[in-house]
Amino acid sequence: MFNPKSFLYGDDLLKLAKVADEQAKKYPDLSIFVTAPFSDLKAIADETEHVIVTAQHMDGIQPGRGMGHVLPESIYNAGARATFLNHAEQPMKLSEVTASVKRAKELGIISVVCADSIDEAKAVAMLKPDIILCEPTELIGTGQTSDESYVEATNSAIHEVDENILIMQAAGISTAEDVFKTIKLGADGTGCTSGITKAANPEQMLIEMIEAAYKASKQ
Amino acid sequence: MFNPKSFLYGDDLLKLAKVADEQAKKYPDLSIFVTAPFSDLKAIADETEHVIVTAQHMDGIQPGRGMGHVLPESIYNAGARATFLNHAEQPMKLSEVTASVKRAKELGIISVVCADSIDEAKAVAMLKPDIILCEPTELIGTGQTSDESYVEATNSAIHEVDENILIMQAAGISTAEDVFKTIKLGADGTGCTSGITKAANPEQMLIEMIEAAYKASKQ
Amino acid sequence: MFNPKSFLYGDDLLKLAKVADEQAKKYPDLSIFVTAPFSDLKAIADETEHVIVTAQHMDGIQPGRGMGHVLPESIYNAGARATFLNHAEQPMKLSEVTASVKRAKELGIISVVCADSIDEAKAVAMLKPDIILCEPTELIGTGQTSDESYVEATNSAIHEVDENILIMQAAGISTAEDVFKTIKLGADGTGCTSGITKAANPEQMLIEMIEAAYKASKQ
Amino acid sequence: MFNPKSFLYGDDLLKLAKVADEQAKKYPDLSIFVTAPFSDLKAIADETEHVIVTAQHMDGIQPGRGMGHVLPESIYNAGARATFLNHAEQPMKLSEVTASVKRAKELGIISVVCADSIDEAKAVAMLKPDIILCEPTELIGTGQTSDESYVEATNSAIHEVDENILIMQAAGISTAEDVFKTIKLGADGTGCTSGITKAANPEQMLIEMIEAAYKASKQ
Repeated sequence: MFNPKSFLYGDDLLKLAKVADEQAKKYPDLSIFVTAPFSDLKAIADETEHVIVTAQHMDGIQPGRGMGHVLPESIYNAGARATFLNHAEQPMKLSEVTASVKRAKELGIISVVCADSIDEAKAVAMLKPDIILCEPTELIGTGQTSDESYVEATNSAIHEVDENILIMQAAGISTAEDVFKTIKLGADGTGCTSGITKAANPEQMLIEMIEAAYKASKQ
Repeated sequence: MFNPKSFLYGDDLLKLAKVADEQAKKYPDLSIFVTAPFSDLKAIADETEHVIVTAQHMDGIQPGRGMGHVLPESIYNAGARATFLNHAEQPMKLSEVTASVKRAKELGIISVVCADSIDEAKAVAMLKPDIILCEPTELIGTGQTSDESYVEATNSAIHEVDENILIMQAAGISTAEDVFKTIKLGADGTGCTSGITKAANPEQMLIEMIEAAYKASKQ
Repeated sequence: MFNPKSFLYGDDLLKLAKVADEQAKKYPDLSIFVTAPFSDLKAIADETEHVIVTAQHMDGIQPGRGMGHVLPESIYNAGARATFLNHAEQPMKLSEVTASVKRAKELGIISVVCADSIDEAKAVAMLKPDIILCEPTELIGTGQTSDESYVEATNSAIHEVDENILIMQAAGISTAEDVFKTIKLGADGTGCTSGITKAANPEQMLIEMIEAAYKASKQ
Repeated sequence: MFNPKSFLYGDDLLKLAKVADEQAKKYPDLSIFVTAPFSDLKAIADETEHVIVTAQHMDGIQPGRGMGHVLPESIYNAGARATFLNHAEQPMKLSEVTASVKRAKELGIISVVCADSIDEAKAVAMLKPDIILCEPTELIGTGQTSDESYVEATNSAIHEVDENILIMQAAGISTAEDVFKTIKLGADGTGCTSGITKAANPEQMLIEMIEAAYKASKQ
């Protein structure tokens, strides 16, 4: 999952999304997600074919009022097929997470819900989202990845509630090696922001990380 | 200002935006704003020439982190040239309104800041936004418009702080007659949501409201 | 649970709390909770013996920073032994609910977590609070109580996750008859706000509702 | 202003409040504010005479609904005669700040509104609170105080709007020397949190800071 947050938009983002798209074509067994600011979703969906275009947030509202909120139908119509929810930089109320996961299911949008502790991950699991992203708040921005015991503890806690939920671990991923190691530790997926956007060569880093994810998944 | 909130998106919205665009071409002395969900901004900006494409909200952030937030550069790049801020359905923290108005100025985005009381309008005026939209909370959704004394009180309170700020009154606008009356009472502009989206013929209502605004402005 | 929200404070609240206290002494098998504004907690705890003094909200923070937040240790020290969390008028972020339930356990404060849908109640149940209060948002303020099928659906959904959690149903309770009926339908408890504060004789209504709860629990 | 935030509660806070109370008796020309968690306000008001008991936050609501919110009447009844609003750790929506300042005026509660930039301070000034506390966000927790040019810029910006508003500067105050210097630079008041709570001898530090404020005010 390539998640450039608000670091990139417009052509710079589109260029990297196309690189990801080529890789997605090359590795059809991998699901490669690319997030974008809301107003970039359509351009990216229009110019890519193989990546899963992903919103950074979505409100659990119905068409109607809701000025300034992110209407699920509007992002689906623009081409988004997945959305993040409850990211640490946009924490949601419990009733909002519940409503947004429900609306995502109704529209066929893949829900990626963040949880920053094992207790929170278990509560989220009861909502049956497609993916839970576990990021212990203490590790965000430290360049330190979740260790084996954390990955195992998270996996078993979530799968005890619902074994169909996919589990991502993405704390502190900054190299292709981190990607490889995290998948090997048992994560179903991983993701990266500044490890790519601030790399000397973002395109190259993106390609290497995707390759690392592929290799780890095949061993 | 045609503000369909989250009632419309995609082709339905685009169709009405094009109707507004024709009217904007016909009445070059009027500024006609059309709001859109974030993910529709680009499509509307790409297919219109004369309306001012307007976001429903914008965060006062810089490129960087800010997952799920609305990056000013991203909506400007998509073609938005104005944004609502602090709408009653998306009320903002004081520090956020301050930051967003500042960022709008930096990028050349017209700021339309909502205020639901005269005291609030005066505080907003100190931030020197381009437009203040006065909607006494009590009147929202009542179909009752602000009366002459309210319009006068708002105008004088805001212009005492800064006489360059344009003042919109938009509470309860549901007919072309309401538009005419509100402009005649002294508002610099007005706007409408469900009066148009729920009209028997939304295109016709939109055209009539714009005509009413034009007539009122010329008398 | 007598929950006068922000309708009462000071002597008016204290007087009713003492009435509840007498009833709590009379019916030792019932747990009678009385909520109070934060700044009234100590006075009520000091002058009652048998009711469970209850805060209306509590933040999941540790002593330290947290200006303007409700420190768990401060309300415990004032005499509160229970707290509401995630009420519809003060909805909490998922990470906050998680942290507050955890802190309540650490201090021996009974947690009463509100949920406004069955999905939300199931997620809350994973956090293992002491009590879940189910109030379908649609019924709040309608004077209409939850019906048998809703009570059964809630009970079975929550107890499937954790059978030790007590379940309150409190939507639309306005008479002693409502209290009786709700307990008979299978709720472990119920509560009331304006049915008491706006009654012709609040003391009498409070007494009658407690009697009704007692009778229902003994049949 | 002694503002121990959520660092202190109960007896530890009461003890320091009594120390402040003695100093307030000794220096009747100074206004000494002591903040407290909501549930400690009454105990402190009951046992002090000369300090101004201050809430850390207050909501702009009327008696009625408002579960979990801080009712102005409840804190006034408990003995609070001032309140902080819009602190950086509890930032308020613009409409909320507006309502809270208004309610404070109605009840005779001194309002201390925080602003973290000069633009924000100017907007706040239009609401005519009693005191504005200027804390440039960048300096919080750095141990670095606002310099002369910042104090002058803030004073002149606020007084241009309303010359009756008192202006506090409290960024980075950690020694009695900081207090003296800040008052001498032109602030009407200052305040401290961890500089006192984490001092080797908090009582002694509190006394020295109050003495420093007195000396600076008399030169």
